[in-house]
Amino acid sequence: MKILVLHGPNLNMLGIREPGIYGDETLDTINDKILAYAATKNYSLEVEFFQSNHEGVLIDRIHAGFNDGVSGIVINPGGLTHTSVALRDAISAVHIPTVEVHLSNVHARESFRHHSYIAPVAIGQIAGFGSTGYLMALDGLLSCLSYE
Amino acid sequence: MKILVLHGPNLNMLGIREPGIYGDETLDTINDKILAYAATKNYSLEVEFFQSNHEGVLIDRIHAGFNDGVSGIVINPGGLTHTSVALRDAISAVHIPTVEVHLSNVHARESFRHHSYIAPVAIGQIAGFGSTGYLMALDGLLSCLSYE
Amino acid sequence: MKILVLHGPNLNMLGIREPGIYGDETLDTINDKILAYAATKNYSLEVEFFQSNHEGVLIDRIHAGFNDGVSGIVINPGGLTHTSVALRDAISAVHIPTVEVHLSNVHARESFRHHSYIAPVAIGQIAGFGSTGYLMALDGLLSCLSYE
Amino acid sequence: MKILVLHGPNLNMLGIREPGIYGDETLDTINDKILAYAATKNYSLEVEFFQSNHEGVLIDRIHAGFNDGVSGIVINPGGLTHTSVALRDAISAVHIPTVEVHLSNVHARESFRHHSYIAPVAIGQIAGFGSTGYLMALDGLLSCLSYE
Amino acid sequence: MKILVLHGPNLNMLGIREPGIYGDETLDTINDKILAYAATKNYSLEVEFFQSNHEGVLIDRIHAGFNDGVSGIVINPGGLTHTSVALRDAISAVHIPTVEVHLSNVHARESFRHHSYIAPVAIGQIAGFGSTGYLMALDGLLSCLSYE
Amino acid sequence: MKILVLHGPNLNMLGIREPGIYGDETLDTINDKILAYAATKNYSLEVEFFQSNHEGVLIDRIHAGFNDGVSGIVINPGGLTHTSVALRDAISAVHIPTVEVHLSNVHARESFRHHSYIAPVAIGQIAGFGSTGYLMALDGLLSCLSYE
Amino acid sequence: MKILVLHGPNLNMLGIREPGIYGDETLDTINDKILAYAATKNYSLEVEFFQSNHEGVLIDRIHAGFNDGVSGIVINPGGLTHTSVALRDAISAVHIPTVEVHLSNVHARESFRHHSYIAPVAIGQIAGFGSTGYLMALDGLLSCLSYE
Amino acid sequence: MKILVLHGPNLNMLGIREPGIYGDETLDTINDKILAYAATKNYSLEVEFFQSNHEGVLIDRIHAGFNDGVSGIVINPGGLTHTSVALRDAISAVHIPTVEVHLSNVHARESFRHHSYIAPVAIGQIAGFGSTGYLMALDGLLSCLSYE
Amino acid sequence: MKILVLHGPNLNMLGIREPGIYGDETLDTINDKILAYAATKNYSLEVEFFQSNHEGVLIDRIHAGFNDGVSGIVINPGGLTHTSVALRDAISAVHIPTVEVHLSNVHARESFRHHSYIAPVAIGQIAGFGSTGYLMALDGLLSCLSYE
Amino acid sequence: MKILVLHGPNLNMLGIREPGIYGDETLDTINDKILAYAATKNYSLEVEFFQSNHEGVLIDRIHAGFNDGVSGIVINPGGLTHTSVALRDAISAVHIPTVEVHLSNVHARESFRHHSYIAPVAIGQIAGFGSTGYLMALDGLLSCLSYE
Amino acid sequence: MKILVLHGPNLNMLGIREPGIYGDETLDTINDKILAYAATKNYSLEVEFFQSNHEGVLIDRIHAGFNDGVSGIVINPGGLTHTSVALRDAISAVHIPTVEVHLSNVHARESFRHHSYIAPVAIGQIAGFGSTGYLMALDGLLSCLSYE
Amino acid sequence: MKILVLHGPNLNMLGIREPGIYGDETLDTINDKILAYAATKNYSLEVEFFQSNHEGVLIDRIHAGFNDGVSGIVINPGGLTHTSVALRDAISAVHIPTVEVHLSNVHARESFRHHSYIAPVAIGQIAGFGSTGYLMALDGLLSCLSYE
Repeated sequence: MKILVLHGPNLNMLGIREPGIYGDETLDTINDKILAYAATKNYSLEVEFFQSNHEGVLIDRIHAGFNDGVSGIVINPGGLTHTSVALRDAISAVHIPTVEVHLSNVHARESFRHHSYIAPVAIGQIAGFGSTGYLMALDGLLSCLSYE
Repeated sequence: MKILVLHGPNLNMLGIREPGIYGDETLDTINDKILAYAATKNYSLEVEFFQSNHEGVLIDRIHAGFNDGVSGIVINPGGLTHTSVALRDAISAVHIPTVEVHLSNVHARESFRHHSYIAPVAIGQIAGFGSTGYLMALDGLLSCLSYE
Repeated sequence: MKILVLHGPNLNMLGIREPGIYGDETLDTINDKILAYAATKNYSLEVEFFQSNHEGVLIDRIHAGFNDGVSGIVINPGGLTHTSVALRDAISAVHIPTVEVHLSNVHARESFRHHSYIAPVAIGQIAGFGSTGYLMALDGLLSCLSYE
Repeated sequence: MKILVLHGPNLNMLGIREPGIYGDETLDTINDKILAYAATKNYSLEVEFFQSNHEGVLIDRIHAGFNDGVSGIVINPGGLTHTSVALRDAISAVHIPTVEVHLSNVHARESFRHHSYIAPVAIGQIAGFGSTGYLMALDGLLSCLSYE
Repeated sequence: MKILVLHGPNLNMLGIREPGIYGDETLDTINDKILAYAATKNYSLEVEFFQSNHEGVLIDRIHAGFNDGVSGIVINPGGLTHTSVALRDAISAVHIPTVEVHLSNVHARESFRHHSYIAPVAIGQIAGFGSTGYLMALDGLLSCLSYE
Repeated sequence: MKILVLHGPNLNMLGIREPGIYGDETLDTINDKILAYAATKNYSLEVEFFQSNHEGVLIDRIHAGFNDGVSGIVINPGGLTHTSVALRDAISAVHIPTVEVHLSNVHARESFRHHSYIAPVAIGQIAGFGSTGYLMALDGLLSCLSYE
Repeated sequence: MKILVLHGPNLNMLGIREPGIYGDETLDTINDKILAYAATKNYSLEVEFFQSNHEGVLIDRIHAGFNDGVSGIVINPGGLTHTSVALRDAISAVHIPTVEVHLSNVHARESFRHHSYIAPVAIGQIAGFGSTGYLMALDGLLSCLSYE
Repeated sequence: MKILVLHGPNLNMLGIREPGIYGDETLDTINDKILAYAATKNYSLEVEFFQSNHEGVLIDRIHAGFNDGVSGIVINPGGLTHTSVALRDAISAVHIPTVEVHLSNVHARESFRHHSYIAPVAIGQIAGFGSTGYLMALDGLLSCLSYE
Repeated sequence: MKILVLHGPNLNMLGIREPGIYGDETLDTINDKILAYAATKNYSLEVEFFQSNHEGVLIDRIHAGFNDGVSGIVINPGGLTHTSVALRDAISAVHIPTVEVHLSNVHARESFRHHSYIAPVAIGQIAGFGSTGYLMALDGLLSCLSYE
Repeated sequence: MKILVLHGPNLNMLGIREPGIYGDETLDTINDKILAYAATKNYSLEVEFFQSNHEGVLIDRIHAGFNDGVSGIVINPGGLTHTSVALRDAISAVHIPTVEVHLSNVHARESFRHHSYIAPVAIGQIAGFGSTGYLMALDGLLSCLSYE
Repeated sequence: MKILVLHGPNLNMLGIREPGIYGDETLDTINDKILAYAATKNYSLEVEFFQSNHEGVLIDRIHAGFNDGVSGIVINPGGLTHTSVALRDAISAVHIPTVEVHLSNVHARESFRHHSYIAPVAIGQIAGFGSTGYLMALDGLLSCLSYE
Repeated sequence: MKILVLHGPNLNMLGIREPGIYGDETLDTINDKILAYAATKNYSLEVEFFQSNHEGVLIDRIHAGFNDGVSGIVINPGGLTHTSVALRDAISAVHIPTVEVHLSNVHARESFRHHSYIAPVAIGQIAGFGSTGYLMALDGLLSCLSYE
């Protein structure tokens, strides 16, 4: 079973700068953490990671995931969450179960971050738990895929 | 360490009626599932469950939790999510780390369910994962409490 | 066949105070009037009355109605009409045919009274006919239950 | 005592088409039903029926009703409910007690159907009870006219 | 002359926790302060205090106040200020002169706190003066009751 | 200690015209009442009064107050309450503790009177208590200045 | 020079009913008054009057006016003012200078009467002067037609 | 196969006036153009044309079309596009496939022209192509009717 | 009988600059025109003119008018129309019948010019007729004062 | 004459997946259909096709079209329709006549799909006719280019 | 060439109070800085400074500038930016090229500061650069006047 | 000191097309102008230019700028100003002082151009001064970097 973990715009900057503020975890660290967690779930679970700052590249990757037989997607769409109908349509088009995750509690930030174009076409949304949110997202996704 | 799991209005009706639609899980089943999951986390974790259809009773219970030394709260506020400033203020008042969880994907339902008065004063929000969402909430809460 | 007539907040004050303004009818008088009218409908029609100023108590009563085999509900949710998602969810949860009734013409009053959270999950809404509205509600409910 | 029953746009199509969906009742059947019900109310009650798809014709008919000594109006304004200030003004102008009735539960449909220009100048509004709603409207109107 | 002082949700938590933030005054201290101030006003002034986190219980208490001959009400509705039409209707129903008071300056906080359902049916609103606001409310109420 | 009492547009017309409606109190009477009340507070309290129908003159007076060592301001900004960002900025600029007062209950009037540009930069707002509101404002201000 | 005076829905009811409220002037009286006033303006001024409760008939009449060489229109569109884009488009289509007049001060009534679809395509709008408004409209129209 | 082409308010004025602005095409010319185009489509295609400035007459014509066995409708509802729920309901009621067409690009004009009550119950909408739009509409309609 | 004609901000610039655009009429010319027109009305009609760019000065002048026994006001509030609650309150305070006039058709300009704070407290509003509008305003005012 | 047909995000997925739902037509099939249709129009008509999921790539292609002498554009902007000001500006910048086309009836879907940033700078919009819409768009474009 | 630099409400308080917060620069210092900068631009550039807390006085000064042959205006309208249509109209009336400048980044402050009535009638707006913004404004203005 | 000048979508088309409208300046000319101006500022100032029509590429470039030690950014985000949260987040993430510049006066154009997602995370915004705006932006940026 293949799971695609998609990181949207600016998530490549995690941990590189201002570790005092954003923590020591780089995106690689988080991906490793997800990989380690996935390994505890089931020996045959394959997790692919992909980050891009480009809406179009993320859409391309979702389409490719469809062709590659991806069973589920965990996506942190970053700022595109609030502005991208095209990304939403990509998820609708491939019909792959998708979980939306945010590091910060978007509901406690600027009002334009309260709305998500992605959430209505996802299984659900997780926000506010830092990198742990990705592990929770994996649990939620696997539960939905009747995997565990 | 004591964790309080609060179920808001109408959650007592889960599983009792129309199991074909809402699933076989009663609230007791879900609570047992949470308990079992908590047991895998740490031997000394105490979980208390409480359900009420009354806003005021839920607020009273949160206050009591403060006096009882509750370390964290998992709350599914049901319909009060979208209407209760008093419940929000109760969570703010006790300053106990709180996770908001919803069985359904509220972001994919009527527009009045997209807004939460609770989320901005919670650690974060989880929506759309059915009863698994409670287990994810426990993970998120424990992670925030630096417990695991 | 059991019918539950629910009176929401402040309806207990009817007729007690300022009869020159609100009329001579107390809530008991209205209930008697409903009972008398029900008696003209069918010998086996059982009508139960319940008033509460508490959202939670009304929800509890609706749940209890489900367990007691109530066939239909007539509800005047008072001020909760415009603010209670939890009450709406209670009606959705029990799937008992429900009629919403208001003594006054809510559509001719303050704009916040024009919107009802209850109406979309009810069979229909009746407003502006004073205590006669309850009798009309009974007719509407029975018609829907294919009773007459 | 003369009662005018006004049917607005598209109500002439009732029962003619798709009886599986809209029921077997044509507008004539509904009118006969109203007539029969009126007959049970009081021997001297005269009911006139009028349907038009034209806003202006309905306004003319209301004015004519004023000249003809109509005591009360039951109106289903159809789609004009949500768009016609002129129809509202006609009802205000003649000061004849008027009841607004809708076959469907307008509050559970598209949001533009939640608002009525007519309701604030009517005694009240009844929605969601199919053709029974007309009989309920007659009851509400007669009660208001202190007739029964 | 009897004055009823009503404290809404979460006000029971005052002074108990985080005195550095909220001050040393518990609700009891505030009530004593009000009592002492009332004593300076007129020897025959009776002040009753009541706190509840339950909307319904507050409504019940207002109704009871009507039956007990309460002459005026000072109410801090807490979070219910912004959400409770039922509480507003209770105040309208009993027609007892009422003053709304808030410890904090609600107009300088989140935008949902700027609107009050209670204020339009009250004599007036006082916000931002901490516990002193209750004494000011008493002055405002007594002035309105032509007492001093 | 110097307190500045500012009266905004149209308050000079109080009591002069239609005493049956607005009461017998002229602005001078109100000012005298404030002065008398201030005298009961503390022998060294100096109160200055100023009325203007000009936004700019009121701003000038606030600036002058800063230069004159005014310790607190009581302001009834009249219609400027709802329209003047410049007046708000003047209060912010001088950082003198300020209390906003309204004779009428602005929250029960036209909706454009519900919003105040001044309140968010004031200690608090008092509305609905007629001329007594000024005395209450003085109490609120002095309490804030830790004066009594 | 031909002037067309158009009266929209419900204006035919003027003066017929409740003269104590609406005045003694029937629409005929008003038309006569306009005619008399026009006669004082210029001997060759021809004024035609037309009233209809039908949007379509009013549009037809405007089109006919174009074919008949009408130089200017005075229109009181009644309730259609606020709802009829088609009427607006008719005026735009014929490019005949048009003055909008209202008997009542629409800006002081319900908020839906503040907006006019007609005014932006008219020379101007006159509201609140009763039947005198028509005479003022004639003046305004003639001035615009460089007639006097 | 019968196709009904409906022209709404003010379209009868096309080409008659200001040909420099609106072009030389009268409505008759456009209808002839449609007829000629239809003739190229299929020898048995019957096209009926109807124009009215009256909402009610257009609704009557749609109903008549249902009785006459009309297979498809091309409608330019003119200004009624943005204001007529009754016209929308007529199209819903008869369930005849309908195409909405506009001569001008309504999306580039006043904001009230961006919304159409008709479009959601039509197959689709075409705007901005002048009289060619009608031919395109015919193509779209026939394609939908699986005709070509 | 004294009539006060008030010109608000920027009207002093009329006719001075860009006569090709704004016409040759200076404010003095317009005032003379009003005076001449008033002279045709009644020999004893006294008209006073006042222009100011200051909100406060205009309010002062309205108050002074009250003291001077002004019977009616014609006001072109310029840009203050859309922003000044204080000016509105001044007119309400003095209860002198007032007519609002605008040179341009404010309803056909930027949307913020469609709303007037003044109109709801005036007899009525006239807009779009250039300097003729003042003469029409005088007619409307005199008619209201039952003068002619 | 060169025509550029632009397909926006997710249109590459057409026909590949779930043919039962979206039909058998792949984007290649649709392009071939357009090509065949174009061939019937005029022997010298050159049609270029381009699809991208990237906003920026689509903008680049439009700019390139300007340099290549493209005479007209048919664009289905997919989800970018509702979110991309940059795409709108690209079309404005090159001033090439452009037709917007949508496979589905966007006006009958989620409200955020009703608004188009592209339509106001296009000749017009076509929505709801499936792949036939592209052929209609070609007709509309050619008509606008005075080609046929 | 004469340039007028206008400072609106509260700018006279700059630098006088709380230099730690607002900086050491008084308005005089800023004016001197502008003067010095102007001197580097062109020997014949005359700069006049004017500050007022009065909307009307600022309007008068703009009008006077027109009479004095002012070639360009740099204005910091302070709080009037967001509330004064009259000030906007003054700038429109004199048609003198005007640059709007703000010390703070208004777009990062309260939402009511995001909108400017002045900007649409100005050459442009500069915000967020402190006193340097005035120098930039001078550059922008001179560039527009084709001066350098 | 390195300064990065970023040009967003469509700015590559400047000067190439329609020089009569947009001026003769190509983007290269503008860049040269900036370079020349920078040279007058300080011998060691390094300016890099980058243009892209791709949101993602612009974000990548900002990230790269962080790694390259860029001290300040001047950005004209073009149409992305109003739609890109991801671009805003990129600027927030790198914490490099940034100035937003627009060639045209966005506040005087379509209302959707009045809002900027970028401005609140920038030092400030400059709009309306054509290519001179870039030079002003450089001044503003350098002033902020305490460079001159």
